[in-house]
Amino acid sequence: MRLSEIVHPNQLHGLSIQQLESIATEIREKHLQTIAATGGHLGPGLGVVELTLGLYQTLDLDRDKVIWDVGHQAYPHKMLTGRYKNFHTLRQKNGVAGYLKRCENKFDHFGAGHASTSISAALGMAIARDAKGENFKSVAVIGDGALTGGMALEAINHAGHLPKTNLLVVLNDNEMSISPNVGAIPRYLNRMRLSPPLKFITNNIEDQIRNLPFVGGSIAPEIDRIKDNIKILTMVQNKVGAVFEELGFTYIGPIDGHNLRDLIETFNMAHSLQGPVMVHVATTKGKGYSYAEEDKVAYHAQNSFNLATGKSDAPSKPKPPSYSKVFADTLIALAEKDKRIIGITAAMATGTGLDKLQAKLPDQYIDVGIAEQHAITLAAGLACEGMLPVAAIYSTFLQRAFDQIIHDVCIQNLHVFFCMDRAGIVGADGPTHQGMYDIAYLRCIPNMVLMAPKDEAEMQQMMVTGIQHNGPIAMRYPRGNGYGVPMQSGGWEALPIGKAEVLRQGNDVLLVAYGSMVYPAMQVAEILMEHGVQATVVNARFAKPLDIETIAPLARRIGKVFTLEEGCTMGGFGSAVMEALMDEGIVVPVDRIGVPDILVDHASPNESFADLGLTSGQIGDRILKKLNAIGDRQAIASS
Amino acid sequence: MRLSEIVHPNQLHGLSIQQLESIATEIREKHLQTIAATGGHLGPGLGVVELTLGLYQTLDLDRDKVIWDVGHQAYPHKMLTGRYKNFHTLRQKNGVAGYLKRCENKFDHFGAGHASTSISAALGMAIARDAKGENFKSVAVIGDGALTGGMALEAINHAGHLPKTNLLVVLNDNEMSISPNVGAIPRYLNRMRLSPPLKFITNNIEDQIRNLPFVGGSIAPEIDRIKDNIKILTMVQNKVGAVFEELGFTYIGPIDGHNLRDLIETFNMAHSLQGPVMVHVATTKGKGYSYAEEDKVAYHAQNSFNLATGKSDAPSKPKPPSYSKVFADTLIALAEKDKRIIGITAAMATGTGLDKLQAKLPDQYIDVGIAEQHAITLAAGLACEGMLPVAAIYSTFLQRAFDQIIHDVCIQNLHVFFCMDRAGIVGADGPTHQGMYDIAYLRCIPNMVLMAPKDEAEMQQMMVTGIQHNGPIAMRYPRGNGYGVPMQSGGWEALPIGKAEVLRQGNDVLLVAYGSMVYPAMQVAEILMEHGVQATVVNARFAKPLDIETIAPLARRIGKVFTLEEGCTMGGFGSAVMEALMDEGIVVPVDRIGVPDILVDHASPNESFADLGLTSGQIGDRILKKLNAIGDRQAIASS
Repeated sequence: MRLSEIVHPNQLHGLSIQQLESIATEIREKHLQTIAATGGHLGPGLGVVELTLGLYQTLDLDRDKVIWDVGHQAYPHKMLTGRYKNFHTLRQKNGVAGYLKRCENKFDHFGAGHASTSISAALGMAIARDAKGENFKSVAVIGDGALTGGMALEAINHAGHLPKTNLLVVLNDNEMSISPNVGAIPRYLNRMRLSPPLKFITNNIEDQIRNLPFVGGSIAPEIDRIKDNIKILTMVQNKVGAVFEELGFTYIGPIDGHNLRDLIETFNMAHSLQGPVMVHVATTKGKGYSYAEEDKVAYHAQNSFNLATGKSDAPSKPKPPSYSKVFADTLIALAEKDKRIIGITAAMATGTGLDKLQAKLPDQYIDVGIAEQHAITLAAGLACEGMLPVAAIYSTFLQRAFDQIIHDVCIQNLHVFFCMDRAGIVGADGPTHQGMYDIAYLRCIPNMVLMAPKDEAEMQQMMVTGIQHNGPIAMRYPRGNGYGVPMQSGGWEALPIGKAEVLRQGNDVLLVAYGSMVYPAMQVAEILMEHGVQATVVNARFAKPLDIETIAPLARRIGKVFTLEEGCTMGGFGSAVMEALMDEGIVVPVDRIGVPDILVDHASPNESFADLGLTSGQIGDRILKKLNAIGDRQAIASS
Repeated sequence: MRLSEIVHPNQLHGLSIQQLESIATEIREKHLQTIAATGGHLGPGLGVVELTLGLYQTLDLDRDKVIWDVGHQAYPHKMLTGRYKNFHTLRQKNGVAGYLKRCENKFDHFGAGHASTSISAALGMAIARDAKGENFKSVAVIGDGALTGGMALEAINHAGHLPKTNLLVVLNDNEMSISPNVGAIPRYLNRMRLSPPLKFITNNIEDQIRNLPFVGGSIAPEIDRIKDNIKILTMVQNKVGAVFEELGFTYIGPIDGHNLRDLIETFNMAHSLQGPVMVHVATTKGKGYSYAEEDKVAYHAQNSFNLATGKSDAPSKPKPPSYSKVFADTLIALAEKDKRIIGITAAMATGTGLDKLQAKLPDQYIDVGIAEQHAITLAAGLACEGMLPVAAIYSTFLQRAFDQIIHDVCIQNLHVFFCMDRAGIVGADGPTHQGMYDIAYLRCIPNMVLMAPKDEAEMQQMMVTGIQHNGPIAMRYPRGNGYGVPMQSGGWEALPIGKAEVLRQGNDVLLVAYGSMVYPAMQVAEILMEHGVQATVVNARFAKPLDIETIAPLARRIGKVFTLEEGCTMGGFGSAVMEALMDEGIVVPVDRIGVPDILVDHASPNESFADLGLTSGQIGDRILKKLNAIGDRQAIASS
């Protein structure tokens, strides 16, 4: 059987190891060719080809449900569930998504994009199954990196408490999240990996368990459950896995994640056990592609590249630096002068650029693992002692630390500097990664200062501002490249908190733009001028506190206000402008231009902007139409 | 020395066990007298009297820092740090706070109110200490319940990875959070508690460690660290604590939390160890007050009561039922008819009223422990399988599941019903517990429906609505009692999603009120009528989708709009009204009445309302003044 013939994963049933290995080879080829052409996550999928095939041969996927954590390792799953033919459209508009989506395919039982959610979801399905008296297997596949996320540990705490609820957790241990993992749990798993592989014990197993020096006594109350499973129970001879056993799981492992025979044997055994079971699978990220095996960080995900050389396709012309790069370079420059500065990442060292800080100033760098909540309260603790913590976390991932931002940072008015990369439209990563909500969810918190730079030079000034301010302060900046403007050349000065700048004067319309929409606003002003409309353009710089002193007299005089932001318009920057004007008693039309109340699907950023009506041309049209409508109403009113 | 003489905790230095025991007795007396008079948290503080005294005798609190998790067990700490004289003002306006506050006292090194933050904060301080080359002890005191919170486990994962960073975690194990704990971790701790108490091993300790059957091998790489500590290291003879040892902590315990001599000896030993250390202290919640020892749930926290009988002071007259009670009774009635309904709590069974569901329909009840993140994604998993999960979580605690609400529920448009108790002003619990932000932080999420009932009868209808709707839907309701209105008598019908009701017609002013502010709006209308101003009052029912069809023509006709909400006005309900009107091209003055952008301190709810200008009389005055101002402006404009 060829991979191209598989439209349902149950077609794997009955295939020989040799046949599966042949399909594994085909999956790797398709995977590599596709990502080389489209870009995407390379290493994670290559590492789980055999895991996926082995698991799926032991399941009936018309009934059983597999929940893949994060979803970026689910490309083999996608190819085996009817998406092989369209796989070349990966991460492209209307094509196959880069993560999992329930609405894309019936075998995507739970969507993902953020880490650490799979055990909770799979446990929910298992509890529902038992409540309904149904009988299917609920399986979570989670990476060792994702296991450091608090919610995964909460789920383990809960599942381990339910000895009658069948749940299989497959631990895909590749010793990496995106970067090498941080923390005691991964280190513990690593010790487990180093232990001899699984051996089967078939005789006198009850005695053997009882007499196992550590586990025996402590699991005595559960011996009955174990007795039920006794015929097929396996024990590793040295007691790795004891932590999970103590937490109520039956632990099996470690097993070789690239040996199909072992995988199938082990999964079949695991399926026969009662209660929560963890199978620990040792995999190699990037398996089968030597460049990726050798540099697991670089090949976690990348743009399109040449398969033969492993090198990225060279861009046609040099690009301006990315915001992430400017952020990292500026942070290093500031941190070299001030030892109190500590950069904090939650397992996103390369994405945020903090890997450069780590290389240059390792003592001023902390990676906490996939643990945004802990990252922020740790930062609060550092701030209590006069350090200057800079938490570099994507807008979408900072959602996970929302309570810590309120409870630990803002209520105590501590000086933590939040640097939110990927704020706004993210492109190919799709809805789970869009940085749409940060203005709305941070603006409502007392003591918080919010700012966004119009370009990479202003970003440098805002970083100085963030470091010098004394209190919670957040800066959002977009995915992608700056404008190539000249950089600040040292001796940077902080911006005054809450002060906007007026970039252009005109009497017909007032454009108040925030962050990445300031340059587009200037383009819009040019378009409007071609239609005889003169625009004032304000670079707000701060969404909170808003510079109402600058904006109010302009709005009062000009009367027609348009706000521009790359974020949700419900409660966002435009609402801040509207609220402030109304509080000043300035009752004028305000049109909020931004992302409406919808989910934004994966596409290129330019496609998303066009779909949302956010290109300069579209905004110009919208404003001209609106001005005509206001003019008509005013004409009627005054007639 | 008497407790009343202690103004600095270092005064405990050098006191004999007998003297400390005498102070312990005084602390208990003061504690009991105060809470009997003021209400507050009773059991937690009584359980840690000796723990606090023992710990503080071993520390120099001019340098060392103790971070108390949650803060409700820190009343003994408060009495020993200069607040004894004012302790009778506990939880009263301008009095001693019921939780910890950095601004209240220099020994409150980190504020708290929510659980599970202390290890992160203490680790942050420890890392800062080492970066600055300082030398103080950083100590977190955390309950076994709080240890099930994901962020505490994230912090343990991080701390266990830092063998050179001295950090002491004192595990205050009273086998309870508010209710008995849930999960594999508490069960594991319980097994540890049942093991023989700590014994000291002084001879050949290295050999003994190496030969300890389980731990020996696995901690071999760290044997050097242990060797450094060898003279004072203790080991329990049976290997409890292995989970924490595996995660990089030196584990000591369990020890009797009411034996001062053991506590002091153990803490002194722990202070001499390097790296992360966990001391496991077995305490009894409510210790020293027999009623509280016997019923640990009821005496966790309560209103004022009679010390001799342990009974609550009877209210002078019968009160209407609380919203929590109506919620629980209604949920039970609905759940009896529909087995798909599952009530979910995160360790707040009594507070939310779900303990009644547990008693009546235990199969339709889940307590996940202090784990809001897991609770919501578990609910999402249940919803995938057609169950009807009802997540009963206070507004302030739901902040912790913000990402799960977006990523797992709303992006997938799953039917999870969020029931947010304590939404709005909470009174004596203070800033960490105010339910101010939920409208703002939920409104920006696509697919979400938001509703709030005007009274307890409408709450019943909204619960039917929440169950019948197919998608994410949230209901907020306040702390405290309803109005005593007649309840629905079965056969309840769902409300149409997004439809408001007009309660009163008047041509001068439009009041659009949400949830708990609807009745006050009606009172305001009465006050306005006394001044000749006729108000239309709309009960919005839904903040999202907003009933703009009803509101728009009223606003267009009446022209002056006031919104009323018990929540933050930044991005809140009033902003929703303002946005919707502006999107309809209706440019009229809108005054948003609610909680401004400040933190609201502890006080009685009535005091808070008055401080915020939210009594009916104050709102009436504000509206009259505003109407005059608008009238003046209009007069000027038309002259």
